[in-house]
Amino acid sequence: MKYAAGVDVGGMSVKFGFFDEGGTLLAKSAVPTKVEEGTVYLLDSIAQQIKKMAQELDIALSDIVGVGVGVPGMVLEQNFVVHCVNVPFHATCVGSELNERLQVPVFVANDANLAALGELWRGSGRGVRDLVLYTLGTGVGGGIVIDGKIVSGCHGAGGEIGHMPVLETPRERHCGCGGTRCLELVASATGIVAETVKYLAEHEEPSSLRSVPPEALEAKDVFDAAEAGDEVAKTMIDQLGRHLGRATAIIASVLNPQRFVIGGGVSHAGELLLEPVRHYFKEYAFLSTAQTEICQAMLGNDAGIYGAAKLAWNE
Amino acid sequence: MKYAAGVDVGGMSVKFGFFDEGGTLLAKSAVPTKVEEGTVYLLDSIAQQIKKMAQELDIALSDIVGVGVGVPGMVLEQNFVVHCVNVPFHATCVGSELNERLQVPVFVANDANLAALGELWRGSGRGVRDLVLYTLGTGVGGGIVIDGKIVSGCHGAGGEIGHMPVLETPRERHCGCGGTRCLELVASATGIVAETVKYLAEHEEPSSLRSVPPEALEAKDVFDAAEAGDEVAKTMIDQLGRHLGRATAIIASVLNPQRFVIGGGVSHAGELLLEPVRHYFKEYAFLSTAQTEICQAMLGNDAGIYGAAKLAWNE
Repeated sequence: MKYAAGVDVGGMSVKFGFFDEGGTLLAKSAVPTKVEEGTVYLLDSIAQQIKKMAQELDIALSDIVGVGVGVPGMVLEQNFVVHCVNVPFHATCVGSELNERLQVPVFVANDANLAALGELWRGSGRGVRDLVLYTLGTGVGGGIVIDGKIVSGCHGAGGEIGHMPVLETPRERHCGCGGTRCLELVASATGIVAETVKYLAEHEEPSSLRSVPPEALEAKDVFDAAEAGDEVAKTMIDQLGRHLGRATAIIASVLNPQRFVIGGGVSHAGELLLEPVRHYFKEYAFLSTAQTEICQAMLGNDAGIYGAAKLAWNE
Repeated sequence: MKYAAGVDVGGMSVKFGFFDEGGTLLAKSAVPTKVEEGTVYLLDSIAQQIKKMAQELDIALSDIVGVGVGVPGMVLEQNFVVHCVNVPFHATCVGSELNERLQVPVFVANDANLAALGELWRGSGRGVRDLVLYTLGTGVGGGIVIDGKIVSGCHGAGGEIGHMPVLETPRERHCGCGGTRCLELVASATGIVAETVKYLAEHEEPSSLRSVPPEALEAKDVFDAAEAGDEVAKTMIDQLGRHLGRATAIIASVLNPQRFVIGGGVSHAGELLLEPVRHYFKEYAFLSTAQTEICQAMLGNDAGIYGAAKLAWNE
């Protein structure tokens, strides 16, 4: 019996999962990232945890076909991590460093791209060959799988959907990347709040959202208020649906994938979010692409370890 | 020695080319499409012309590895043409129909996607693995090649870049697809003229373009006037560059391809078009993707037969 391990490196913790070829999660664990300890510590602790889990599962390292590793940054083809956000991998060849420590093949990719691969393997994308995943959280991440393979792009920027300059009218706020037209500025949790605060300041309409101090407002409050019938909140969710629906229609004209999957914290709003996205997508989409399914992600925070393990199986 | 044939089916004529594996064009020819004669006539005349050229080149049909065929429409995986514009292939299995007539493997794909593959093989994309081609003509077509393979999409709509709903503010005019936010509405030859006519009607500025009756105005006139220093024409070309630059930055965030190539009649404007596109692309593009090269297509009307032959070599 052979196994693959999936690793998902985040700013706070590193998640681990062991999988068989069918995609059954045999065990999972997590260790703190401890970014302040630096690169070597992080590489050592990842290798150590994999050895520890293998021992607990009674799996010989020689029965591991590969270890997939997702990192929050840009990865070039040779498993070379150019730069990460919040994680001390900069110009680090994570692939060969871990391979040296484990003597097992190691494959590194961007975490959002791996989440897309994970959803395709064992989540909302089961049965399809291509899928585009949005992760709507503090920012907007994305991952693209075409014909079963991740589209990582020549600078490692494939699937950077949150930074599509979809806004013709720039915002005054700047995106983390410096842009003023990014989808992230209006479709992330932060963006939803900022757009709502601005709307409330510029309009006189009564709204239950006015009882929350602007600095304490969260995206969830806007969804809750919309569900309770608040007109301002409904307007904001409608605008969010319009931006995401148009962005989705744009991607459908470019790639015409089989499925769109929406994950991340904001996606917990469920149909309250999906319904307006589907509505505007159908309005804007090119001909038959309007039939493309848009659904909610299934694997939550585990998508990354699933995708990382699948990458190891694929290679 | 083995050979491949490339066929490009258009509304007026069908173009043919024979190629060796290195991509040398050995001979080319064209026959009228005669759409009024219908489907069977068109299939027969394509098969006949291939046999005729093979005979003239002294190539046995058994030495042809395959025939690639580009059609102006949507093609599903099994070489099945769903629908064409201006060509009598509707729900036609062009692949098996021609295979029956020729006893040679036949591979069918969308013509714009094949033009992209052709440019990658022997044109402006030599040496790269992925490329996005825009064809700026009466409409805006597009083709995408990732890792050497065409992205055709699940409804055959991959690379339909002209129908990306990039416009936040819809136009009153409708695109051929029914949309009011399509890139084609502002970046095709027709769109450039329509935007210019509208601008002239809404503004008082003097312009040499006012001496041309609106119904006689062509995109080339706008480029010529801009080159001669006409301020209105310069504004229009700047706007065109802004729309194309932003669309290119959007695609760069999604796919991060190695190269963008611009072809079609409008691309003959050369640097006058490319310079503003590059300028706005750099302004809008996400981080390192801004370094992506944007260049002019090289193969002109032959891109389709090159790509069709390459498809046959690939399969």
